[in-house]
Amino acid sequence: MSDGSSHFTVSFRSTECAARLGTLETPHGTVRTPVFMPVGTRGTVKAMSPLELEGLGTQIILGNTYHLLLRPGPELVAKAGGLHRFAAWNHPILTDSGGFQVFSLAGLRKMRPDGVEFASHIDGSRFFLGPVESAAVQRTLGSDIVMAFDECTPYPCTREEAEKSLELTHRWEEISRNQPLNEGQQMFGIVQGSVYRDLREKSARFLTSLPFNGYAIGGVSVGESEEEMIQAVEWTAPLLPEDKPRYLMGVGTPRQIYESVKRGVDMFDCVMPTRLARHGTAFVRGGDTLPVKAARFREDFSPVDGRCPCYACRNFSRAYIRHLLNVNEILGVRLLTIHNIACYMELMRGIREAIQNGTFLSFGETLS
Amino acid sequence: MSDGSSHFTVSFRSTECAARLGTLETPHGTVRTPVFMPVGTRGTVKAMSPLELEGLGTQIILGNTYHLLLRPGPELVAKAGGLHRFAAWNHPILTDSGGFQVFSLAGLRKMRPDGVEFASHIDGSRFFLGPVESAAVQRTLGSDIVMAFDECTPYPCTREEAEKSLELTHRWEEISRNQPLNEGQQMFGIVQGSVYRDLREKSARFLTSLPFNGYAIGGVSVGESEEEMIQAVEWTAPLLPEDKPRYLMGVGTPRQIYESVKRGVDMFDCVMPTRLARHGTAFVRGGDTLPVKAARFREDFSPVDGRCPCYACRNFSRAYIRHLLNVNEILGVRLLTIHNIACYMELMRGIREAIQNGTFLSFGETLS
Repeated sequence: MSDGSSHFTVSFRSTECAARLGTLETPHGTVRTPVFMPVGTRGTVKAMSPLELEGLGTQIILGNTYHLLLRPGPELVAKAGGLHRFAAWNHPILTDSGGFQVFSLAGLRKMRPDGVEFASHIDGSRFFLGPVESAAVQRTLGSDIVMAFDECTPYPCTREEAEKSLELTHRWEEISRNQPLNEGQQMFGIVQGSVYRDLREKSARFLTSLPFNGYAIGGVSVGESEEEMIQAVEWTAPLLPEDKPRYLMGVGTPRQIYESVKRGVDMFDCVMPTRLARHGTAFVRGGDTLPVKAARFREDFSPVDGRCPCYACRNFSRAYIRHLLNVNEILGVRLLTIHNIACYMELMRGIREAIQNGTFLSFGETLS
Repeated sequence: MSDGSSHFTVSFRSTECAARLGTLETPHGTVRTPVFMPVGTRGTVKAMSPLELEGLGTQIILGNTYHLLLRPGPELVAKAGGLHRFAAWNHPILTDSGGFQVFSLAGLRKMRPDGVEFASHIDGSRFFLGPVESAAVQRTLGSDIVMAFDECTPYPCTREEAEKSLELTHRWEEISRNQPLNEGQQMFGIVQGSVYRDLREKSARFLTSLPFNGYAIGGVSVGESEEEMIQAVEWTAPLLPEDKPRYLMGVGTPRQIYESVKRGVDMFDCVMPTRLARHGTAFVRGGDTLPVKAARFREDFSPVDGRCPCYACRNFSRAYIRHLLNVNEILGVRLLTIHNIACYMELMRGIREAIQNGTFLSFGETLS
């Protein structure tokens, strides 16, 4: 079980705001924060190879417990020697608890006091996931960072619902905390409380009384406004221990990441760069997006982003990538995914440098 | 127009059989033969990046005139600076004439004395492709090797049909030969004649009387038996000039390639390694295939081919690739494509070495 010890060191604090630089030690290496974790849902970051991820400076990826539980199943992954070996990713991995996906299965799930019974969206077979089971699966997968099993409070949600959900979450997280872990594995707790300040505060107080190795801010990026999301970060982050990493789950756009780093968040994950790539949309430096499939790029022989040093931008034009997307050639999605991840990695490098150089606030002005 | 000059040098002849080593000079570099050309249908070898192709030792790729004519259109490619630049492939490219695809459009095409009128399989828009138009498109694409426009005789086919088709093909190829080319572009003629020995001989005689820079054996890999295919090669190859490259179109399995090299063929292309990869099938050294999606590989943590040094085999297991294929993750197809192309490249390296070392016949015993 999590002993609450800190594997995190704050190495530098911005004098301009709550932003900080840190290092997080894991059995598979050190992560420099603030960090963005590409999402490797089913043991692969969609369209990417581990080699390409490494080449772009990816430090840590996220794996989805729900998806891996269904296919190929944790037993198979364990037989392969764990998720790192199975997926040939010899760097840190954080796994989520599966809760978020399970609660999205409206109609296919049944709440119980000790967890959620649900039917696989693939073949209808029955599963049960609660704090005990989620921790067991994540232990079997062998990730470096295990997330506590919480109820991701839906949005919108009345105060009463949020309060009730928070009680359940706290009970489950306490059970999560007491589950055995592999040597070196860390567990993060997750603060909930929806858009209600006092509930966020209550949650932060309760969870920080439990010895987790880090704390996430959950229940964001679930449909609330950007303002409400930043608000939740602003309320919560200052209540989390200075010496533990803070992770904002499922966020977000370059601007949202920046605003959250400014308020003291260290870690992020989001499907946006990979998902938008599959829909033909590229990020460009500064945070704008480019719908590469649009007709206006038909004869545009410039790279997606002329300032980007990634493989896609060094070698291929918007017109070529647009052609590939139009005819459903895999390379089109591959090139946009490479570029979008490169763009996020460059954003995080820029953020870390700006914190170090005392130019974090002016760095924000370069973002749209 | 093709002046029939030779850009090909035979550097070594096997004393065991008709196999030979050669070099083919093109404006984008030298190709060592015997060579296999991966198929880059629409300006990309499916699922691969140019960087990966280079890493596997790919010397030359094939582009499909029919597909590129429809999308993105040769004008766009020309504006991009030609197919090499558009696709970021700075090595030789051979383009086919488009004939093979056009003749496959049963019901959508109308034969005319000077070519074929057809409807795009995408949006029904009308196109016309004949020897003049095909050469013009290939000139616009800027490939290194242009193929003459022929009628790919279907199989099965009566002698009378084959004879009639051959007359048309010869007329069209003569017109092809007289079309202007870009500086440095070469044009290959294509021997037809179906499964009829005298027609193959007649075709070889006629075409070698025209000054092409190389000669292809066409109308194979269209449904005939392997025996009939090898037969056509055996009849035709000895009638082709010693000092010009010989290209067997659309072939084939490792065994078929080997048997054709043995009979004096220098160049090959085939969708098999890339297409089988997309269907979850891997080649293994020796030419056997492995249906990686099969249930028996579920817990097989060995690489696809333990003797293969490719990225896929060095890092990933059959079980992992099977999982990726099962959940439709792009990386699964990518890894199998990398491996299958690696396997073909290794085959060709093995063939070239065996010719050089005088061990070509015993090399054949390692193939299934």
